[in-house]
Amino acid sequence: MKAAKLLRAADVVLHDELVSPEILALVPATATVFNVGKRCGKLRTSQDEIHRLLAEHASLGLNVVRLKGGDPMVFGRGGEELEYLRRLNISLEVVPGVTAAVGAAAALQIPLTHRDVSSTLILLTGTGKDRGHSENWPEEIPPQATVVIYMPGHDFDPLINRLIRSGVGGETPCAIISGASTEGERVHVTTVEHLRTAPPLPAPKLLVIGEVVRWREVRGLREQFSGFRFSENQEVSPNFLESAE
Amino acid sequence: MKAAKLLRAADVVLHDELVSPEILALVPATATVFNVGKRCGKLRTSQDEIHRLLAEHASLGLNVVRLKGGDPMVFGRGGEELEYLRRLNISLEVVPGVTAAVGAAAALQIPLTHRDVSSTLILLTGTGKDRGHSENWPEEIPPQATVVIYMPGHDFDPLINRLIRSGVGGETPCAIISGASTEGERVHVTTVEHLRTAPPLPAPKLLVIGEVVRWREVRGLREQFSGFRFSENQEVSPNFLESAE
Repeated sequence: MKAAKLLRAADVVLHDELVSPEILALVPATATVFNVGKRCGKLRTSQDEIHRLLAEHASLGLNVVRLKGGDPMVFGRGGEELEYLRRLNISLEVVPGVTAAVGAAAALQIPLTHRDVSSTLILLTGTGKDRGHSENWPEEIPPQATVVIYMPGHDFDPLINRLIRSGVGGETPCAIISGASTEGERVHVTTVEHLRTAPPLPAPKLLVIGEVVRWREVRGLREQFSGFRFSENQEVSPNFLESAE
Repeated sequence: MKAAKLLRAADVVLHDELVSPEILALVPATATVFNVGKRCGKLRTSQDEIHRLLAEHASLGLNVVRLKGGDPMVFGRGGEELEYLRRLNISLEVVPGVTAAVGAAAALQIPLTHRDVSSTLILLTGTGKDRGHSENWPEEIPPQATVVIYMPGHDFDPLINRLIRSGVGGETPCAIISGASTEGERVHVTTVEHLRTAPPLPAPKLLVIGEVVRWREVRGLREQFSGFRFSENQEVSPNFLESAE
């Protein structure tokens, strides 16, 4: 609601690809809007150019909103933009958002932590500055952890190997969520060892790994997203409750 | 905005202590409102009673909103409520929220991940089902990780020992945030080894540990929260940029 208020008062908006039309409709018609998003890894506007646009308009005394899908402080490069603007003494405010892991959990109707099965939540990224971020992943992933991988890319092989080397069992359930909480949302539920044969879902996507995935309510999702094509391996019980009862 | 829409259409609302009056003002005057929050660990309404209230009202065909501060799926017991309602075939929808770690990062104006210093975000809780959740913490915390501890409690000693045993350096900067993004927000910045001498800030609080804490902009916060009493150890440069330049 705070974000909506700021958008309604914006003179300039710089937004990413992942922002929905409903949200952009809040921007006044008099505002200048820049789509600075990327698609398929191709940068429409460089990070330097984004910095320059933000600073240039803010220096004119205009209300500039940098609008991102998800939360800017979690794998969102918000830190870099913050740093740049601060060096120029441009005052700013950060409005927190719904980070993709949390949005995906809501869509899947699964908890990310649960007193009985998961007491640790680990957020990682599959693609990094030097394309090798998995090097900095924890050496060991504790058994009671949920792992969410942002931007897992198309080739899951290195991720699977890395997860198994960190102690994640091949039979651990996992879900690939593409376009979480958008109209085009797609979900594929499988296990870590069967990720290799998962259908190639389009970006933006997210990988959720852990026992909590068993909490998923397939029926609920089916109803919520009618016309939604379901594809999933049968190794995983789609409903934890059925197997628990 | 989706949550606001649902609140405006609610017949019954069950909310926690952490929900602000501005949000509760959205609830229609005709709705029945239950405050089921806890204070200082004392449960006002038991979890079983919450389940019963949710189910009872939903079974009457009423629109029931379970309103929580933060996100229900991250250390929020949302999974338990979900499970209970599903067993009764009560249809539901999960609306994601701003989880406390993300809210605290926005208030501190620090990124939780940053391409240069943190590629892993680990969310843990200090208090668990059997008061010993730190047993399930990762054995090793990678050097490029940000750790956020939800509900760290009052006695930091076991947490400090556990962090150091996991490889976190005693000199790692950290911040205690009490009442993040509320009027009564308080922040104390220190290092892991100096946490022992930190002032006892009131719950709800959060502990953020990692190099990203250096990104904190003291000046910005000072302005934002005027009348705010600042207390911090001087070992940590309050502004990363000053030391970087």
